[in-house]
Amino acid sequence: MKLAMVDDRMASFEDLDPVHFDRGIYFGDGVYEVLRSYHGKIFALDDHMQRFAASLAAIRITNIDIGVVRQRVERAFQAAGFANAKIYFHVTRGSEPRSHTWKPDLKPNFFLTVSELVDHPEEKARGIAVCTHPDWRWKRCDIKSLNLLPNILARQEAADRGYDEAILVDDKGYITEGAGSAFFAIIKKALQTAPLSANILPSITRKFVTRAAKNTGLAIDERCLTPKQAATADELFIAVTTKDIVPVVRFDDATIGNGHPGPCTQGLMAEFQKFTL
Amino acid sequence: MKLAMVDDRMASFEDLDPVHFDRGIYFGDGVYEVLRSYHGKIFALDDHMQRFAASLAAIRITNIDIGVVRQRVERAFQAAGFANAKIYFHVTRGSEPRSHTWKPDLKPNFFLTVSELVDHPEEKARGIAVCTHPDWRWKRCDIKSLNLLPNILARQEAADRGYDEAILVDDKGYITEGAGSAFFAIIKKALQTAPLSANILPSITRKFVTRAAKNTGLAIDERCLTPKQAATADELFIAVTTKDIVPVVRFDDATIGNGHPGPCTQGLMAEFQKFTL
Repeated sequence: MKLAMVDDRMASFEDLDPVHFDRGIYFGDGVYEVLRSYHGKIFALDDHMQRFAASLAAIRITNIDIGVVRQRVERAFQAAGFANAKIYFHVTRGSEPRSHTWKPDLKPNFFLTVSELVDHPEEKARGIAVCTHPDWRWKRCDIKSLNLLPNILARQEAADRGYDEAILVDDKGYITEGAGSAFFAIIKKALQTAPLSANILPSITRKFVTRAAKNTGLAIDERCLTPKQAATADELFIAVTTKDIVPVVRFDDATIGNGHPGPCTQGLMAEFQKFTL
Repeated sequence: MKLAMVDDRMASFEDLDPVHFDRGIYFGDGVYEVLRSYHGKIFALDDHMQRFAASLAAIRITNIDIGVVRQRVERAFQAAGFANAKIYFHVTRGSEPRSHTWKPDLKPNFFLTVSELVDHPEEKARGIAVCTHPDWRWKRCDIKSLNLLPNILARQEAADRGYDEAILVDDKGYITEGAGSAFFAIIKKALQTAPLSANILPSITRKFVTRAAKNTGLAIDERCLTPKQAATADELFIAVTTKDIVPVVRFDDATIGNGHPGPCTQGLMAEFQKFTL
């Protein structure tokens, strides 16, 4: 008898929820998005749906209607009723017995969670500490996929050492991005960040940060930073959907600026807030 | 209300099976093994359990008893009752609301399937075709993790082009291994394969292939091959737990040898069979 086992319990394949045979768990064969709302309105929904469609296409999940996904996101957000919500969702290629190649007519699986987002103003006021970690990720980090083991291992190691985020450094000695965030420096009134490439997630927040930078008169310098350059930057910050801009005041052993969020970062945070109203 | 959505159905977190919140699906945060039996006996169980323990340790899943995992594998194999069985199992870090960092006391999830293994003697007699594909995987392929998106994308692309396996080539132009197999060449009566490193899975089958090579008088040359060297090798084959040795008779556009499995590969296959009795 073909059989499965969940912890100590044996079962036939038919008796198990198909989620157990999800290619998402077998292979990380799926893509995801994280959105947030501000004041009862989902932020940058169009941008997120557009990136999600690009991720789906990149891993060749074709038989899902992106309009249906968007409707589900909006419906779940409305049903949950949080003014400031965090919305996570993923689509996997579907459930089937494990095989590297997939059936072309497989039905994708959709999963979503909505929870209340608690902002941490004290973190933004104080700034966070980050440490460097080798970038062990695959070569298509522009795809927002469920293959995130290097990200969580780096983040956990950072946390164990008392840091809030791991900043990933590639083989050539350049910073790519954070384990779960985009990374920015302010050097001589210019905003410096790695250019978009196959090794970088096209961060939605990055797009708004860049817009905020233009509005506040900063130059934009899309160029990779080394850890040494970052450690001596005038200001540093990370950007992530759920928290937008978070100042960085410590980078490995180095104190950034005077150890408090710098004026340009504060200006960007204020400017970013305007987008959320 | 904190809520989840599975396809079109909304549910509270509490109403869903915890498998939906498995870190295995969120992050690929787990490790796996595939074993087979020959004639009613699991092959190389000690080796597989040892490698599995190493994978668990490498991603810091600590609170699971490897002896219990082994007992479950043996129990399921006995219950299924196949002489030639394919056994897949994984352990993930556990289920919890999505967060990069994990709770230290999280209970790992175990999942296993057993199915009958159908051998394909005609494939072994005829040989298979393989094509090269860029190695897009992460930098710790020595860990048998659930982050397999680059593997399945490469394998599917190979299949779409009429090839049976994708042979991965790194940035420096060297072959690492197959998308789901180890890769070997016979060049001037020597068995050549990539040395074990962080970019290579320590294949159990490889260990037995090496032993078979010694028994049949082949020299062992642990050195990376380029695609060009592979295309002009005397013989090629892949090795994988479920099929052991499978001759390769086409490599991209090149015919290997006379287009039929070569004598050294056939000698290795015969020698390997002795280990399975």
